[in-house]
Amino acid sequence: MTEIEQRRRAIAARLGELKVDALLVSSPANIRYLSDFAGSNALMLLTPAEAHFFTDPRYEIEASQRIGGKVHVAKGPLMLAAAGIIKRKKLKRIGFEAAWLRYDDAAKLKEKLPLGAALLPIGRVIEEQRMVKSRSEIASIRKSVQVNSEAYERTVKRVKPGMREQEIAAELEFQMRVLGAEKPAFETIVASGSRTALPHAHPTSHRLEKNELLLIDMGASLEGYSSDMTRVVHLGAPPRRIRELYKAVLEAQVSAIGAVRPGATAGNVDKAARDVLKRHQLDREFVHSTGHGLGLEIHELPRIGRKDRTQLRAGMAITIEPGVYIDGLGGIRIEDTVLVTETGCEILTPTSKEFVNL
Amino acid sequence: MTEIEQRRRAIAARLGELKVDALLVSSPANIRYLSDFAGSNALMLLTPAEAHFFTDPRYEIEASQRIGGKVHVAKGPLMLAAAGIIKRKKLKRIGFEAAWLRYDDAAKLKEKLPLGAALLPIGRVIEEQRMVKSRSEIASIRKSVQVNSEAYERTVKRVKPGMREQEIAAELEFQMRVLGAEKPAFETIVASGSRTALPHAHPTSHRLEKNELLLIDMGASLEGYSSDMTRVVHLGAPPRRIRELYKAVLEAQVSAIGAVRPGATAGNVDKAARDVLKRHQLDREFVHSTGHGLGLEIHELPRIGRKDRTQLRAGMAITIEPGVYIDGLGGIRIEDTVLVTETGCEILTPTSKEFVNL
Repeated sequence: MTEIEQRRRAIAARLGELKVDALLVSSPANIRYLSDFAGSNALMLLTPAEAHFFTDPRYEIEASQRIGGKVHVAKGPLMLAAAGIIKRKKLKRIGFEAAWLRYDDAAKLKEKLPLGAALLPIGRVIEEQRMVKSRSEIASIRKSVQVNSEAYERTVKRVKPGMREQEIAAELEFQMRVLGAEKPAFETIVASGSRTALPHAHPTSHRLEKNELLLIDMGASLEGYSSDMTRVVHLGAPPRRIRELYKAVLEAQVSAIGAVRPGATAGNVDKAARDVLKRHQLDREFVHSTGHGLGLEIHELPRIGRKDRTQLRAGMAITIEPGVYIDGLGGIRIEDTVLVTETGCEILTPTSKEFVNL
Repeated sequence: MTEIEQRRRAIAARLGELKVDALLVSSPANIRYLSDFAGSNALMLLTPAEAHFFTDPRYEIEASQRIGGKVHVAKGPLMLAAAGIIKRKKLKRIGFEAAWLRYDDAAKLKEKLPLGAALLPIGRVIEEQRMVKSRSEIASIRKSVQVNSEAYERTVKRVKPGMREQEIAAELEFQMRVLGAEKPAFETIVASGSRTALPHAHPTSHRLEKNELLLIDMGASLEGYSSDMTRVVHLGAPPRRIRELYKAVLEAQVSAIGAVRPGATAGNVDKAARDVLKRHQLDREFVHSTGHGLGLEIHELPRIGRKDRTQLRAGMAITIEPGVYIDGLGGIRIEDTVLVTETGCEILTPTSKEFVNL
């Protein structure tokens, strides 16, 4: 049995407990996880015994080559094709992904459902299964992390005052791709000076100046799997205040990584970072959570957030990325991709966290 | 009044006719259109007199700098923050975007709605307003198209046998960014040989060979606006069958462009392309629609599809991209970005459509 088939089986085996005859899958990442299909228009319907896959004619050749299971190529809305199968197979209780199904699609489906069939909202069952990565998924994440760090090293070497944020982003993404990534896992963040205080800054045409902070938050997508890393460097020798901030954030990041082990809750890990920043009176400047799972998507379960009770398990891949942001001055964030292991964790990101002055 | 304010006013003025007291906007592109905010987490609530904007603390600084109107920074789900405003303002009939609102978000909102308040599905009202572009939007699309074509020219010059599809994609995207694009408007398609028969092929590590087709479908996103172009070239002199296919597709594309004018329906334009391919007995190999609107998103209204009755209007920006796909042999698609003008249309894409043999 292939890994994809195993994944489908594991979900199919839970349908009874979820009290549904079938599960309609509309999340693109969940579809990829259950079919290896990465196109833009697809839908799946899982029953205990079968996996139905729906797409449009643009993907007919690709789907026939790649997808195991029953492939249906539909010219109209995929929901109508799914309703046809529901009718034919006399399925009654149809679970759907409540976090994904849109009102219009639900309405289309409802209209065509046979009498006596019902739609039932289902939580993030597939996302929960995706939290723990298989050996092959971990191998892909490792490659993604390596390529990402290598692209960073190659690019940072050449950074100097006068370069534009956009040029740096272009170079980072070019290097990623040359090294084998399919694409950036998200819009690369390159921010300099006081713009580093914007946690999700888009690169601008601003030219780097001497004595400025430079924040780079980047990730690759490789074999479908994401990596995620943030580093901050300083052009020239940093002033004392900036050095202190960097030290505090690094201490928080190391402390959070120290808390990652099977059985710890995501909230424990978040608290480890937050407590350090509180001691430095910087907790109010830490405006996001400590991290997130990653895999086929850049943001997956678990969320490493305040009071989150999800227990970590070996095989989870997560980010640890505390940061502080001070309007007018700048921001510092340090982020690694980390794998939960049987005994604790492994930091996958190989890039040094020393505070580099270019 | 700024252009953003004018757009909000135009939507607000339609709330009465839609029989709602407020419209909840959750489509990211619609939010950008109505606020110029491009972050990953935002929500808007428009009333006839006010525009409420909701985001999380990561975007607090950015939102306070950029967004006109009432900005609410919420730590929890934005839907709950919106419910708070609905309650405070005693709004009763809340329209929502049926094509966008997800079941979970609707459920969260419903739970917190005050007694007597109701949620009402609304069609693509903002998307319909977005179909006709303003002068400044057209200027951005022009820039995006220019940069895209320039990146193509710079890259294709260097293409030769032995290069990998992925390298070509990396180079195309690097050139785009160096020329000022924020990012590719979609995943760049670079396909060679018989893989050109997959309308949405991802670039692979396959190395180009002599006497192969090479299909490139690329777009830039610049100032938020998309461009979209497809060209097919041949490495070496093409065989007769390929030349004939190219000629037929080009004839179909030119014919469709000839049909673009205010008052024509999208279906007329699609038919113009389809009729030509039918004459060449290639209509069954044309497995998608002739084109689509583009702007803040790469796929927007109108859809230039079979029997679509949308009337074209001056200021619409659309693609014209017929293609034929023959399993085992290859695919040909030719695509331009086109602007509907008062008297007909203007082909924005400057790149030659001569069949280039590299």
